[in-house]
Amino acid sequence: MSGGDGRWHAAWLPPEAFGAVGARRVLVHGDGLLVDTVFAEVAGACADHGGHVLRSGLADAGEAGAVGVDLVLALTGAAPLPAPAEAARADAGTLGDEGFLMARAGEVTVVLADAPPGLLYGLFHLVRLGAAAFEPGLPAQPHRPALRRRMLNHWDNVAVHPVMGQVERGYAGGSIFWRDGRPRRDLDRLRAYGRLLAATGINAISVNNVNVHATEARLLTDRLGDVAEIADVLRPYGVRVHLSVSFAAPVVVGGLTTADPLDEKVREWWAITTRAVYERIPDFGGYLVKADSEGQPGPFTYGRDHADGANLLAAALAPHGGVVHWRAFVYNHRQDWRDRSTDRARAAYDHFAPLDGRFRDNVVLQVKYGPMDFQAREPVSPVIAAMPATRLAVELQVTQEYTGQQRHACYLGPCWSEVLDFRPWGPGGPSVAEVAAGRAGPDGRDGGLAGVSNVGGDWYWTGHPLAQANLYAFGRLAWDPRLDTGAILDEWIDLTFPPSTTGDPALVRQTLHAVLDDSWRTYERYTAPLGVGFMVRPGSHYGPDVDGYEYSPWGTYHFADRDGVGVDRTRATGTGFTGQYPEPWSSVYESLDRCPDELLLFFHHVPYGHVPHSGTTVVQHIYDTHFAGVEQVRWMRQRWDRLAGVLDRALHDRVAGLLDEQLRSATEWRDQINTYFFRKSGVPDAHGRRIH
Amino acid sequence: MSGGDGRWHAAWLPPEAFGAVGARRVLVHGDGLLVDTVFAEVAGACADHGGHVLRSGLADAGEAGAVGVDLVLALTGAAPLPAPAEAARADAGTLGDEGFLMARAGEVTVVLADAPPGLLYGLFHLVRLGAAAFEPGLPAQPHRPALRRRMLNHWDNVAVHPVMGQVERGYAGGSIFWRDGRPRRDLDRLRAYGRLLAATGINAISVNNVNVHATEARLLTDRLGDVAEIADVLRPYGVRVHLSVSFAAPVVVGGLTTADPLDEKVREWWAITTRAVYERIPDFGGYLVKADSEGQPGPFTYGRDHADGANLLAAALAPHGGVVHWRAFVYNHRQDWRDRSTDRARAAYDHFAPLDGRFRDNVVLQVKYGPMDFQAREPVSPVIAAMPATRLAVELQVTQEYTGQQRHACYLGPCWSEVLDFRPWGPGGPSVAEVAAGRAGPDGRDGGLAGVSNVGGDWYWTGHPLAQANLYAFGRLAWDPRLDTGAILDEWIDLTFPPSTTGDPALVRQTLHAVLDDSWRTYERYTAPLGVGFMVRPGSHYGPDVDGYEYSPWGTYHFADRDGVGVDRTRATGTGFTGQYPEPWSSVYESLDRCPDELLLFFHHVPYGHVPHSGTTVVQHIYDTHFAGVEQVRWMRQRWDRLAGVLDRALHDRVAGLLDEQLRSATEWRDQINTYFFRKSGVPDAHGRRIH
Repeated sequence: MSGGDGRWHAAWLPPEAFGAVGARRVLVHGDGLLVDTVFAEVAGACADHGGHVLRSGLADAGEAGAVGVDLVLALTGAAPLPAPAEAARADAGTLGDEGFLMARAGEVTVVLADAPPGLLYGLFHLVRLGAAAFEPGLPAQPHRPALRRRMLNHWDNVAVHPVMGQVERGYAGGSIFWRDGRPRRDLDRLRAYGRLLAATGINAISVNNVNVHATEARLLTDRLGDVAEIADVLRPYGVRVHLSVSFAAPVVVGGLTTADPLDEKVREWWAITTRAVYERIPDFGGYLVKADSEGQPGPFTYGRDHADGANLLAAALAPHGGVVHWRAFVYNHRQDWRDRSTDRARAAYDHFAPLDGRFRDNVVLQVKYGPMDFQAREPVSPVIAAMPATRLAVELQVTQEYTGQQRHACYLGPCWSEVLDFRPWGPGGPSVAEVAAGRAGPDGRDGGLAGVSNVGGDWYWTGHPLAQANLYAFGRLAWDPRLDTGAILDEWIDLTFPPSTTGDPALVRQTLHAVLDDSWRTYERYTAPLGVGFMVRPGSHYGPDVDGYEYSPWGTYHFADRDGVGVDRTRATGTGFTGQYPEPWSSVYESLDRCPDELLLFFHHVPYGHVPHSGTTVVQHIYDTHFAGVEQVRWMRQRWDRLAGVLDRALHDRVAGLLDEQLRSATEWRDQINTYFFRKSGVPDAHGRRIH
Repeated sequence: MSGGDGRWHAAWLPPEAFGAVGARRVLVHGDGLLVDTVFAEVAGACADHGGHVLRSGLADAGEAGAVGVDLVLALTGAAPLPAPAEAARADAGTLGDEGFLMARAGEVTVVLADAPPGLLYGLFHLVRLGAAAFEPGLPAQPHRPALRRRMLNHWDNVAVHPVMGQVERGYAGGSIFWRDGRPRRDLDRLRAYGRLLAATGINAISVNNVNVHATEARLLTDRLGDVAEIADVLRPYGVRVHLSVSFAAPVVVGGLTTADPLDEKVREWWAITTRAVYERIPDFGGYLVKADSEGQPGPFTYGRDHADGANLLAAALAPHGGVVHWRAFVYNHRQDWRDRSTDRARAAYDHFAPLDGRFRDNVVLQVKYGPMDFQAREPVSPVIAAMPATRLAVELQVTQEYTGQQRHACYLGPCWSEVLDFRPWGPGGPSVAEVAAGRAGPDGRDGGLAGVSNVGGDWYWTGHPLAQANLYAFGRLAWDPRLDTGAILDEWIDLTFPPSTTGDPALVRQTLHAVLDDSWRTYERYTAPLGVGFMVRPGSHYGPDVDGYEYSPWGTYHFADRDGVGVDRTRATGTGFTGQYPEPWSSVYESLDRCPDELLLFFHHVPYGHVPHSGTTVVQHIYDTHFAGVEQVRWMRQRWDRLAGVLDRALHDRVAGLLDEQLRSATEWRDQINTYFFRKSGVPDAHGRRIH
């Protein structure tokens, strides 16, 4: 249970994080696989830190064992609880499968759960609290996840893809599941991964890329054993396994001549195939599907729609309790840039909103948070407000495809928090998080939160050591979207860099906050002024190329000319995309005056001399933010030096090197973007700074 | 000797091309490997066409055999010649190794050569002439190649490169030499290739990419046998084999710790290694080296210069009669786009001109024809006039990296002809071809012509069937740079589409001329207005991306802003590149008024309203040429339809499909470039045509 014995970085679970728990006399009360996990975790901690642990089953009257303990972790149940737990029980209410109660009963800290997963999450909450969990004044408090499904999507290929590599959009080495077309045999690392996930609250992963290539298609059938092996390792940590499948699987691996969702043979094939999956993996989560998108097969081939397609798989999964995550990322990627009436931002809504009500109960429509593709800044997708009769999951990108590819420090917690707090129907209405939790719709259907994983075989798991904070924050926000992202960062800092192990814990905290707190907005400043996106190198998506996608078929334009820049998405004169939003946003975005500055160029084409709320012209705003962004990176880089000698040297060096690259890259962004707009507009910088 | 028995396209040597020779009574007189080839060729032709052939050796008195023949192919020599040959001999003069005399002696056509290669070239000249070679009025004419070294460089990788593939910048399938890291075993095809080369006059090839990767480095040592096998197959066609080598070979494959050209162990290693090469391949041509360029190793690593580097290899080759082709394509590919003082166009001159006189006799400096990199339009490289004491080879690109990648029909003969006819010292001075032939320098040192091959495993050899004309024209121009490129095209057409095999030979000729004659200038019109280059997709170099290289480290800029476009390379206000030319060009290029339109933006940055000689403004010129270029492609496409049913259907279909793609691509070029400059300049098209 220690930090990987030097085979990988311990991340937020170094042995020191268990100091407070491991020094106690502990009783673990209850039965079941995940209770065994709790017991093993506590036993390992006690071995490290001098405490000791007892175990009793639900059938035991726990009182005897509870004598003289400091901490009880107990499942509620028919049999009598240990006395301190019994005392706390009254406060618990219904905790559900994953909830837990934490309380003090006299001198004893008590964690109560109705079911084993709750006990595991309670344990990791104890770890987060550390010594504070044993202070007399600890209030009794139930904890329940806001979202039931908290999922990571791995875009991992089993066989290395000639262009996209082992992990599509992966910046942390190879896959932790697969290598050279076969499963990796390092089950210890996989176990450590499950443990890290459980400690953040993540309870589901999909184990292969949504672009399902030939080898990966076979995971559903003759290579199912590979998936089962992963499921077996992750099960003790409450993490269920999902599989990305090809919609064409009946043809590709099934030998049928069609994958038509209304064909009886196809339905039968999916039913039989899915039954076989559940025979092997009884708690299998379900399927994840990218259909009719960027070249992937889908129901359109057969003249069917996405409801037909999703319901086909849902029907096969329903008898076993599985769900299908059907991605709404569908658009025309062979667009003609000359055609200004087509708007990629409209696509998901146009495709899916008309289908609301047609999806089976166990279909979850997985919607990217914005209408485009994980840009540093986008408005929230209008699809989220458009489908009250459909279970919706919101998809975030933990891997930093468009936000610095784990070479730039970019803490995404604040971005996600903004998205999750956004209220599609205006102030007073439900938030995006509430829609995903199912609390916005009439029948309370929950969808959940999905994040594209940033994890790989890298020693630090995430390439950039500080990108661990993104993975951690994703899990924590999925558990409770209202958490303060600064407080999440504090949790992550104190767990990852335990105060007992660094010379100057206050400096560590200060510096990491200084580097990370504003890092997403800093990244936005030097890359994406006023909501313009996609000014990136085509293909790699790293580094600037202002016109890189301007004449491409991908539907990602800014329309800069010598007079102005931006995409007119208004109803009055543009693509009408603003009309996909309910009020008040429909009017706010439509209005040049009311549109928020950070989305100005996403919704409007304006002259360079237009003055947004910031008070400077658009072109001067571009110059200013780009100069400022680079200066902020320079300052981050300087701040980081203060931790030399305070943190582990290898980690410090790695981050220092990456911050050097970030400064180089940010300077390149600044110079290319400023030069581009200077050459177009002819407007010199008001402050006389150098533009090339 | 027939057309590959359907295993590949016969190109310019279908059986029908041998009709005139093969119907004769022929005497082949002389000894030697290449005379055997001549005999075998004639014997094959006679078997096909009803003639017959006799053979006599140099020791024979040939008179008896010569009785009643129509054609004598004879080596001159000590022994008596067959009577008709003896009669012609007086006209021959000195023919040299590769020259031949063609004449009529009474009723007999005579081909005389001093050495076997000349006899082989004479045979193929007969084939080109066809029936005309047997007409009574045929004048006696000696033929000697203008350039001794007529070389193709294959950029073929033995092992498939993960990014560049099997053939770097290859558009005709895989390598004809290598597959999957091993030699191909199809020696028949290799033999057919040698035959095609000999028929154009090409007498040397390098068999691997100038970017020498790990596997390819071993061709010099433990995999030398693979090279020898190729040499054995090509030797009967007079084609010598050269090898691209890594300058770091002593380290990479030799196990030394340095490749320093002044290190005694390094010199010794090269001497021993080279001796071993010649033991295995006695007529080995030599080495081709790309050093200190685009990441390749070179003498700079050791603080030495290119003369040190080239002389090292030359010393090893000299005892065996080999040469080193040392490429002058050296520049800083990590340039900072912000730095306008650095000019990639200057690089080769700056690096090499100071070294003139320091190279050993058997070093050939191989200079790309232009100062940049095979753009559709560049000025001739100033290096060509700068090194009178150095043997210079001019390098052309037969593979269409920047000229449509064998998806566009683009006959490069006229481009090369312009380059070869260019007179670096002005009218009256020697031409580029004369420099390459060694007739410009005081000591007559010859360098030759090198072309980057466009050949691959494709059935048509060159991907685009019409791209065969480029390979053919390259060989013919290397033999005689003064040839008219329209006449070369006639030769190619009549050989490739023998009049006896098409229903309408005149239509075939007309149509192919219509499609090809102006195709290079058409390509220039829709891609590279007024000398601007590199507006291509980075990496692939196919299709437009106006700003693709604008902010890159590759040194390939156009500096377009809202006011104007072009690169100021003048001495007065720019990079001073014009100063690398001798007069009159130095003044011509320096002058905005005298600079030729087609190079205007290569040498000058001008406002969009500037009016060049064409009489329209720069921006209108851009619009006009781009609209015109697309219309010309449309017309080419229509003209091609006339050959439906006249030519072989598969070939016609292939070209028709490629012309469709050319029209699509040309339209894309037109629209992106016109839109780009419209957005920048704000100037509408004077003729109101649609710009997006």
